[in-house]
Amino acid sequence: MKLKFLLSILFCGSLAASAQNQDSLYLRKIYDEALVNGKPYQNLEYLCKKIGPRLSGSANAQKAVNWTKKLMEQYGFDRVFLQEVMVPHWVRGEKEQAKIVSGKRQIPVSVVALGGSVATAKNGLTAEVIEVQGLQELKTLGEAAIKGKIVFYNRPFDPRFIETGAAYGTASDQRFRGPAEAAKYGAVGAIVRSMTEVIDDYPHTGATQYDEGGSKIPAAAISTKGANQLSALLKQQKAVKFYLKQNCQTLPDVLSYNVVGELKGTESPNEFITVGGHLDSWDLAEGAHDDGTGVMQSVEVLRIFKALNYRPKHSIRTVMFMNEENGHKGGLKYAELAQKNNEKHLAAIESDEGGFTPRGFSFSDVKPAFLSGINKNWQPLLEPYEVDRLVKGGAGTDIEPLKATVPNITLIGFRPDSQRYFDLHHTAKDVFENVNKRELELGAAAIAALIYLIDQHGLSF
Amino acid sequence: MKLKFLLSILFCGSLAASAQNQDSLYLRKIYDEALVNGKPYQNLEYLCKKIGPRLSGSANAQKAVNWTKKLMEQYGFDRVFLQEVMVPHWVRGEKEQAKIVSGKRQIPVSVVALGGSVATAKNGLTAEVIEVQGLQELKTLGEAAIKGKIVFYNRPFDPRFIETGAAYGTASDQRFRGPAEAAKYGAVGAIVRSMTEVIDDYPHTGATQYDEGGSKIPAAAISTKGANQLSALLKQQKAVKFYLKQNCQTLPDVLSYNVVGELKGTESPNEFITVGGHLDSWDLAEGAHDDGTGVMQSVEVLRIFKALNYRPKHSIRTVMFMNEENGHKGGLKYAELAQKNNEKHLAAIESDEGGFTPRGFSFSDVKPAFLSGINKNWQPLLEPYEVDRLVKGGAGTDIEPLKATVPNITLIGFRPDSQRYFDLHHTAKDVFENVNKRELELGAAAIAALIYLIDQHGLSF
Repeated sequence: MKLKFLLSILFCGSLAASAQNQDSLYLRKIYDEALVNGKPYQNLEYLCKKIGPRLSGSANAQKAVNWTKKLMEQYGFDRVFLQEVMVPHWVRGEKEQAKIVSGKRQIPVSVVALGGSVATAKNGLTAEVIEVQGLQELKTLGEAAIKGKIVFYNRPFDPRFIETGAAYGTASDQRFRGPAEAAKYGAVGAIVRSMTEVIDDYPHTGATQYDEGGSKIPAAAISTKGANQLSALLKQQKAVKFYLKQNCQTLPDVLSYNVVGELKGTESPNEFITVGGHLDSWDLAEGAHDDGTGVMQSVEVLRIFKALNYRPKHSIRTVMFMNEENGHKGGLKYAELAQKNNEKHLAAIESDEGGFTPRGFSFSDVKPAFLSGINKNWQPLLEPYEVDRLVKGGAGTDIEPLKATVPNITLIGFRPDSQRYFDLHHTAKDVFENVNKRELELGAAAIAALIYLIDQHGLSF
Repeated sequence: MKLKFLLSILFCGSLAASAQNQDSLYLRKIYDEALVNGKPYQNLEYLCKKIGPRLSGSANAQKAVNWTKKLMEQYGFDRVFLQEVMVPHWVRGEKEQAKIVSGKRQIPVSVVALGGSVATAKNGLTAEVIEVQGLQELKTLGEAAIKGKIVFYNRPFDPRFIETGAAYGTASDQRFRGPAEAAKYGAVGAIVRSMTEVIDDYPHTGATQYDEGGSKIPAAAISTKGANQLSALLKQQKAVKFYLKQNCQTLPDVLSYNVVGELKGTESPNEFITVGGHLDSWDLAEGAHDDGTGVMQSVEVLRIFKALNYRPKHSIRTVMFMNEENGHKGGLKYAELAQKNNEKHLAAIESDEGGFTPRGFSFSDVKPAFLSGINKNWQPLLEPYEVDRLVKGGAGTDIEPLKATVPNITLIGFRPDSQRYFDLHHTAKDVFENVNKRELELGAAAIAALIYLIDQHGLSF
């Protein structure tokens, strides 16, 4: 009996070792396909250069829907379809103008309207500026100090965070909530320091949210150079005014689409593993890293499996979500339909932190046992590819709503190197030329590798 | 007795935990100083933009010696001094010219002379081309096929390697040894495919080595685009000729210097920890990543310690080695003097793989027990900074000679992300603009963190 028990342990051990070995060989195949025959770079070039900016509701967003659908059809995925979704349609209008007005001096500075902002009056808005370091300071200052002024949020990125996303996380409330909060104290406008550590002349746009029924004041991002100039002047002089002119507006909602491609599962076709990014982008550039890289990596994952003639156990879906930037409507729709169609979902993975060298994956709301299990079993398989940081953390805006509508789903964020992301995030610099071919391909391979492991072994750690 | 024993274990355990905690706090201080007050980026800008290319023996190399010496003196390091070293003095001369000559067609292509190459005759060299995939093929082809021709080495970078340095390692014999080997078979010239995966028009220079007493034939690197064009034509037609004109030459050796800065050890002043990079660079650009980043990180390490008022146990030295690119004379001199002066050396760390996001360190010729010990003890301390890949591997050309002259030294290579390095290595693209501030600073902090740990605890694992 003892011997039998011992043998069974040894046998199981060798079975496990052999499975590890097969996995290891298959991961190598995935990487070879991605690095030798990879297509995400040329696909991204098309998306950036032939289509370009693709804010929700725009003609370009529709072009991107049509092209990516066609692309996945050409790759011969088992099923390619659209999911209808109504999205907001905000337009920037003419280029914004802004000046610091200090006595007789007028100093032009670079600004961009925040997404969702209202316009100024036709001849612009001029008002005194009050600088604050964050939302809390509004309360301390009170309405008397703020009323009739433009609130200038100037808390910089904290450079001490190792991952820049954490710095973004602690600064972005100024942009997202700052204008609405300032309005409550009678502010007539809000300008927000751009969400970056780099000091330059590129303002970073991004969504801001007004309160339902609250006062809507014009809101813009100012470049870090402009912010430093304005702050320096405010330190020297009592009263500094700011001139802002923008004529952005929100048009009626538009019918748009999530674009979905699928490889059908051979064992559990009604159980899904989703990989995705968002197809929409801000209007200032090409949405290369945000999030052209994520959607083209997601398409590449399925292309790799198809090229390797891999027949997955579960259905694997690539989803190009619409409207991540200013509404999250595509992600909400996908989660709603998953529930409506009684779909089972094993996992969803989002790539929306840029197409930089992959470092690992973060798993949302998992227990310590899950983390130690996945690290024990899969870290050694991913280590040769240097994508073995498997940590607890956020997953992504587009897949987040699945948590509420699909039971037992594991949400996973793809984690590339974060250092360069906020140099170009939401700016005119987010163009194809700033994406590196190998970094992009390695990311696609890493995601495919993880999906292969999930498909083969599940996620019960 | 048992209780005493138990207590002593607990006490030791808590001592170890407390040491870990102190280390952890100190590493955070190092990173804060690097990320908040870091100077390597502005120093690199000076080196690149105010000095520029600095090939050994050039006036710029001497300017770089003078400036970096002054910089370290201004930082108030305990001792700053020069080490005399004679270095080769090769000059490129006028811009090279090259054309593929196919019947009446003449197709201009981008080439650069390899470092150390001889010139062609004044009116250039024209000869038939024979393409090979590597040095071994020369033997197969034999003298009859090669004599009087230009040998075209065209084995590409293998994209399947995860670290690009490995691809370089398997391709670079074509450049370093290819021309000398081809000369043995009567070749009249050699052109070598540029050492990169990127297909573009930027040729990559680099050293080639002739055999003592062997025939010296003109040798140049051709851009990958040019190489592909030439190879395609060779497949179509029997005879394709190549025209090459270059007038590079080797002048008499020049007196130059390693630049050394030192913080004096408080406990073992005669025992050293060295950190360095090389001050010389190729002449085509600014030597930003190769190796301006390495030298400016090395200076930054000492600046950080000085700023934190850290008094090291051992003496810590920053060495800016001269002549890594075409002779290694500075590294050889440093090792020679270490022996002559009976210096003890605990460790030497080299940063010469670019200023990209740090991933870890490689330790040369270490035993498995060392690797498991260092990973057990220090990986948890480095993990929060994502620089915790501690592996066996090469260290660096400049510190390598220390192995032969200094007993018991541990040689360590700084390992940044490798994906972008060979996009610009040894080309006109290796300029300041392609260096990212945070990536550079994180590298300096990582090296300082490792040196702090070595200084505190030694390297006996």
